[in-house]
Amino acid sequence: MDPLARLTEELTRPPFNAWLGLRAVTVEPDRVQVALPFRPELAGGTDPYLFHGGILASLADVAGYAVSAIATGGRTPTIGLHIEYLRPASPVDLIATATVRRLGRSLLRVDVEIHADNSLVAIARGNFTNTGGAQ
Amino acid sequence: MDPLARLTEELTRPPFNAWLGLRAVTVEPDRVQVALPFRPELAGGTDPYLFHGGILASLADVAGYAVSAIATGGRTPTIGLHIEYLRPASPVDLIATATVRRLGRSLLRVDVEIHADNSLVAIARGNFTNTGGAQ
Amino acid sequence: MDPLARLTEELTRPPFNAWLGLRAVTVEPDRVQVALPFRPELAGGTDPYLFHGGILASLADVAGYAVSAIATGGRTPTIGLHIEYLRPASPVDLIATATVRRLGRSLLRVDVEIHADNSLVAIARGNFTNTGGAQ
Amino acid sequence: MDPLARLTEELTRPPFNAWLGLRAVTVEPDRVQVALPFRPELAGGTDPYLFHGGILASLADVAGYAVSAIATGGRTPTIGLHIEYLRPASPVDLIATATVRRLGRSLLRVDVEIHADNSLVAIARGNFTNTGGAQ
Repeated sequence: MDPLARLTEELTRPPFNAWLGLRAVTVEPDRVQVALPFRPELAGGTDPYLFHGGILASLADVAGYAVSAIATGGRTPTIGLHIEYLRPASPVDLIATATVRRLGRSLLRVDVEIHADNSLVAIARGNFTNTGGAQ
Repeated sequence: MDPLARLTEELTRPPFNAWLGLRAVTVEPDRVQVALPFRPELAGGTDPYLFHGGILASLADVAGYAVSAIATGGRTPTIGLHIEYLRPASPVDLIATATVRRLGRSLLRVDVEIHADNSLVAIARGNFTNTGGAQ
Repeated sequence: MDPLARLTEELTRPPFNAWLGLRAVTVEPDRVQVALPFRPELAGGTDPYLFHGGILASLADVAGYAVSAIATGGRTPTIGLHIEYLRPASPVDLIATATVRRLGRSLLRVDVEIHADNSLVAIARGNFTNTGGAQ
Repeated sequence: MDPLARLTEELTRPPFNAWLGLRAVTVEPDRVQVALPFRPELAGGTDPYLFHGGILASLADVAGYAVSAIATGGRTPTIGLHIEYLRPASPVDLIATATVRRLGRSLLRVDVEIHADNSLVAIARGNFTNTGGAQ
């Protein structure tokens, strides 16, 4: 499957991913970008409207999983995720950029940065299982 | 506001929390339990159905925020969250138990454990801002 | 090798461990306790004397590695470590308690708590590689 | 105090830092580089000799503290540190590069990368307290 088709499948097939309304932006062998438009159900605060922290963590998880799956060609269950919130996330399109930092025999280390317009709102780091043995 | 009413408000007022369908289980001054019933939109995998990792991260964030807010009496924006996935989360009621480990002048450290039936499926640790100065 | 001998070997054979001056306290199949007496070279602050944060991270790493090695019977290189500092660590004997939370096929999740006298000064969580396949 | 003098002081005044044998390499307002030459007491493994994971965590903590102290002009106690080990760290000079990702009113988020020659051996992320209110 070509990488963009694979990314699109990852973003739309799992039910919660489909509900989020994710969109593939760019795909490279070790880097993907994913967009998530705002809508009110994704909010934590409402005065003003801001994205919920759990939505940002979900976006980081999905983007990290997707780049891992594309880099290895297999399934890559999340081992753990560490996210830090740097600024409130305004109700615009979020862009998550996930980059493989290390593809090891048994796990991948992936960094994810999330921007709202030009503001860096969260940085995350995840470990994903390499079930296929690609290295 | 009494603690159970405060917890219920935290679980239902933010739009994404309301969508999740969270339910207050127990409230103590430094410990809360929150339940999240399964439904297909919360799934990552579908064969078999399993909770999405982002849903578990969201549940940990909400439970950690809630116990922090109850312990301090104020707003407690999430600084960062670290979650580790120990086992697949079967499509049953999840129970998140959030416990304050340290209430400091400027931030709280909170541990969250998530069970699916009697199986420990995830452990999380979060930092939350103490905006009210309770210590 | 009996578990206490194995723990003692882990605490004394690696050169930096030997320099630290670690001492085995208790050993169970999935839990060990390690003591570290203060001496001035282990200090960060000097007015008053306090243990250096890097020493606490090192102690957490060593205790987590040791319980993993004992639980699996093999080598268990550290994948990652997350430590949070809760209180200043006074110049007394530190006691680190490392507990296996999950022994999986490819990695172990370990929690470590560090006390200075009766004060909980740091909590850590580490992932260690299961090279032996014990599960 | 000029930034290089301040960095040198941070690397040599705390007793454990002095024992490590750290050396200032570069200083910018939000980025510092620190070198740590190998010697056998800093080893974990001995066949072959490799740096101990606790030494890398200590180096990340010191470099993150130093860039925070320089950026704020005050003391910046470590709140928490998350380190991931990507490759074995060969017995050469380590170079830690610490960069401020966000200077907030109450805390700083700092990324640290550690290289051994041209190999990226560890990535770390720390939170440090902003005691001076610089923002």
